[in-house]
Amino acid sequence: MNFNIATIPGDGIGPDIIEQTVLVLNRIGEKFGHTFHFTEVLAGGAAIDATGEPLPQETIDICKKSDSVLLGAVGGPKWDNLPGDRRPEKALLGLRGELGLFANLRPALLHKALKDACPLKPEIIGDGLDILVVRELTGGIYFGERGRRTGKFGEEAYDTETYSVHEVERIARVGFESAMKRNKKVTSVDKANILESSRLWRSVVEKVAKDYPEVELNHMYVDNAAMQLVRNPRQFDVIITSNMFGDILSDEASMITGSIGMLPSASLGEGTLGMYEPIHGSAPDIAGQDKANPIATILSAAMMLRYSFNLEKEAACVEEAVTKVLEQNYRTGDIMSDGMKLVGTREMGQLIINAL
Amino acid sequence: MNFNIATIPGDGIGPDIIEQTVLVLNRIGEKFGHTFHFTEVLAGGAAIDATGEPLPQETIDICKKSDSVLLGAVGGPKWDNLPGDRRPEKALLGLRGELGLFANLRPALLHKALKDACPLKPEIIGDGLDILVVRELTGGIYFGERGRRTGKFGEEAYDTETYSVHEVERIARVGFESAMKRNKKVTSVDKANILESSRLWRSVVEKVAKDYPEVELNHMYVDNAAMQLVRNPRQFDVIITSNMFGDILSDEASMITGSIGMLPSASLGEGTLGMYEPIHGSAPDIAGQDKANPIATILSAAMMLRYSFNLEKEAACVEEAVTKVLEQNYRTGDIMSDGMKLVGTREMGQLIINAL
Ligand SMILES: CC(C)[C@H](C(=O)O)[C@@H](O)C(=O)O
Ligand SMILES: CC(C)[C@H](C(=O)O)[C@@H](O)C(=O)O
Repeated sequence: MNFNIATIPGDGIGPDIIEQTVLVLNRIGEKFGHTFHFTEVLAGGAAIDATGEPLPQETIDICKKSDSVLLGAVGGPKWDNLPGDRRPEKALLGLRGELGLFANLRPALLHKALKDACPLKPEIIGDGLDILVVRELTGGIYFGERGRRTGKFGEEAYDTETYSVHEVERIARVGFESAMKRNKKVTSVDKANILESSRLWRSVVEKVAKDYPEVELNHMYVDNAAMQLVRNPRQFDVIITSNMFGDILSDEASMITGSIGMLPSASLGEGTLGMYEPIHGSAPDIAGQDKANPIATILSAAMMLRYSFNLEKEAACVEEAVTKVLEQNYRTGDIMSDGMKLVGTREMGQLIINAL
Repeated sequence: MNFNIATIPGDGIGPDIIEQTVLVLNRIGEKFGHTFHFTEVLAGGAAIDATGEPLPQETIDICKKSDSVLLGAVGGPKWDNLPGDRRPEKALLGLRGELGLFANLRPALLHKALKDACPLKPEIIGDGLDILVVRELTGGIYFGERGRRTGKFGEEAYDTETYSVHEVERIARVGFESAMKRNKKVTSVDKANILESSRLWRSVVEKVAKDYPEVELNHMYVDNAAMQLVRNPRQFDVIITSNMFGDILSDEASMITGSIGMLPSASLGEGTLGMYEPIHGSAPDIAGQDKANPIATILSAAMMLRYSFNLEKEAACVEEAVTKVLEQNYRTGDIMSDGMKLVGTREMGQLIINAL
């Protein structure tokens, strides 16, 4: 089969990790008889430098016409002092909105080989961690009306958290469908004791749950969820939550695994077009030095194979290759520990290709 | 000196822990020559059962006339199915609003004697944890306009996050003043890359910081803060943040200490009237069984002595007594571990009184 992939190397280590990921995808293509066409486009700081704006229209157009988007990382101190709407992050928000990517899937997985990097005690982790955070990505306080005005205390600023029945229903379905392929447990996180949008969220989730009688549903307040992720993370299978709460909880869930450099993400919409990116940042301090860990991006490509191209076998093949290389004790600097073999970005990419 | 204290035993274990705390305060009174007058009032589930509403006007009036308020716990499954505005939590929100308690001080402290209960690895904890979360408590999305309406996707619900210059300024001052008495470091947590209210927050915090040149200020996005609390909590001294982010982060910070049953809180306003309560819940399953841990409430009373009554010596005396009893290896059920001596609520209270 043929697939068109828009690549956005972006800033910092973005180009380093995308380069290796493209090589991995090409090898998968050879092995399984697919052809991947890559079109490189600009976004983030790189786009600001080249065109003056973080998300050029051409980038949006090419992404929309592609079968999927692979993103490295955007942002860095160089662009930190630009005004809000001209900053690299705007590219992310713009792409999410323009491509209608309302569902962000963030697996927080502890690779057995990296168990020692976990900040939680071994008795809490047990034999592993495997949580999927399903974060709503195009609604809530990220996209609601905001501004300045004069209120009873003088100058004030406001932001609006908004959720419609439709928006909650579609993200809830993604959560329940995911749970059906996993351990059939959904925890819906909200703040229904305070927020009206959470009360709507909760009632819609309960309605959707009726279509998935096999899935066990529980509701949890966000403050409690932030605690439970530390106290007993193994109680979670799939977490579904709003854009803002998902931003916080997915990062917390990632951190308890201890290996941010390993974690991929997928942002999906109604169709098969998705955007795939590592959850780590652009790490400008090590950019271009063959030091970055390409694994999170390579695992993001595996998610692309699975979710956008429906190539489960190919996806699993990539994931197994990563596991194999870790078991052979190869490590990039960020996950290095005593007795392991230190390798650079390119060698890590090559090792994974060899293991495919 | 004479002090009038309104006590709100509330629900579940509330009466058990308030009883012991009153005894401790009486002993402090005897020892240091003060008189504490206690007036018990109704709030939460107990008030719903007795009067039909969670926060009777009489309770508000008595609290307003008191020098301070001591609260046990409110809520429980018995009242969980009541409509939003008749639920026990409304009592908390009502008291915060009516008494103007805009600053919530939540120390996340690891007691050396309880180090083993911490969920984080010993190398992360080092020789202890001592973070003070200063949460804004009467503004933001908790108190903004909310409702239902018809939007572009049909039925929707909305909530408004609002912050005025005035509200941010006064909470920032509490944060900087607290930092001056501690390690002179403030981390202001926001989401200024998305929220207009966070951008206002950040600029006001920077202005207030100018009055505290000795205090080191840094800004952190809330998603990163949720990660850093797990990765390296010792980097924090005072955290200042909004009502909603503070709800999440203060609970996460409490949990990483591993001893929720030990942590007090203070809610302060412009004057000296404050409300003091443990951060744990009402634990209805062990209510009235002499099993609850009264320490968080007793330490809340110590905060009352310090912040509302300006009795530093008396406050320190209570805190030292608690430390002493823990060092003598006495434990209630919630913090029990091998080789320790299990005691009930009353015996724990008595041991602390003896140690005063
Ligand atoms: C960069 C920022 C706007 C973004 C977000 O808050 O969504 C990031 O934190 C993320 O989670 O992808
Ligand atoms: C009970 C609830 C309304 C309350 C809050 O969210 O403020 C609680 O979580 C707290 O932190 O005191």
